[in-house]
Amino acid sequence: MNTILLGIVLIAGSPLMRAQSGEIRAMLQNSAAAWNRGDLAAFSSDYEDSPETTFIGKDVVHGGTAAILDRYRRRYPTREAMGTLSFSEIEVRPLAPGLVLAAGKYDLKRTAAGGGDASGRFTLVIRKTGVGWRIIHDHSS
Amino acid sequence: MNTILLGIVLIAGSPLMRAQSGEIRAMLQNSAAAWNRGDLAAFSSDYEDSPETTFIGKDVVHGGTAAILDRYRRRYPTREAMGTLSFSEIEVRPLAPGLVLAAGKYDLKRTAAGGGDASGRFTLVIRKTGVGWRIIHDHSS
Repeated sequence: MNTILLGIVLIAGSPLMRAQSGEIRAMLQNSAAAWNRGDLAAFSSDYEDSPETTFIGKDVVHGGTAAILDRYRRRYPTREAMGTLSFSEIEVRPLAPGLVLAAGKYDLKRTAAGGGDASGRFTLVIRKTGVGWRIIHDHSS
Repeated sequence: MNTILLGIVLIAGSPLMRAQSGEIRAMLQNSAAAWNRGDLAAFSSDYEDSPETTFIGKDVVHGGTAAILDRYRRRYPTREAMGTLSFSEIEVRPLAPGLVLAAGKYDLKRTAAGGGDASGRFTLVIRKTGVGWRIIHDHSS
């Protein structure tokens, strides 16, 4: 048991893991900043532009950044409906080289007219592509 | 574009991918069968018995099969609350050697006393261990 725990601490504490975790956290911070300046196109560009990319929310979306952007635009048609987004309780777990699982909590602060405050949990599978880390699967609830 | 689409068809149609997808679908079918005979211990044994295993539902659980089993027992304390489980719209995507993403829909048929019918979506990250495929992350909503 101690060996297992030590192994986890060593992995979690490795320079590669710390660097990856830092990159993913920075990506999420930039993502929230894009949302909070009303830039859904930049927000959606964090998803891999592939027909295999999936988004599970209340509905299920398959497709690249255009499909993801379209879904966000339908669900958040106004700046007021978008509100102010923040992420917390972020956990990053390496799955394989260039592949991580990120999970956490999102909070949306909104006016009553915008739909009121909302919060929930997300799971992201993120892979390192030639142009940086990209989300290949999002489950938000 | 045609090359990309052809690549996806070739991967999806490869013997390895078909075999993996078949194994994951069989695992889910066995999992639903365990649930439907009231065997939550067998159901929970599909999760990797590791402190890193995570379950995101209404709450977040970290831990091995005992923690997962405890969560299921708390949320589904009686046979009537468990109802009859089925999975549909299952999609299996290979992520890396011995690592897949599985997503789909769950339906719970229950009496009104058991809580009434319920349905939702799940995302599973499943890895091949020395003792077979095990769920390392579950997000159900």
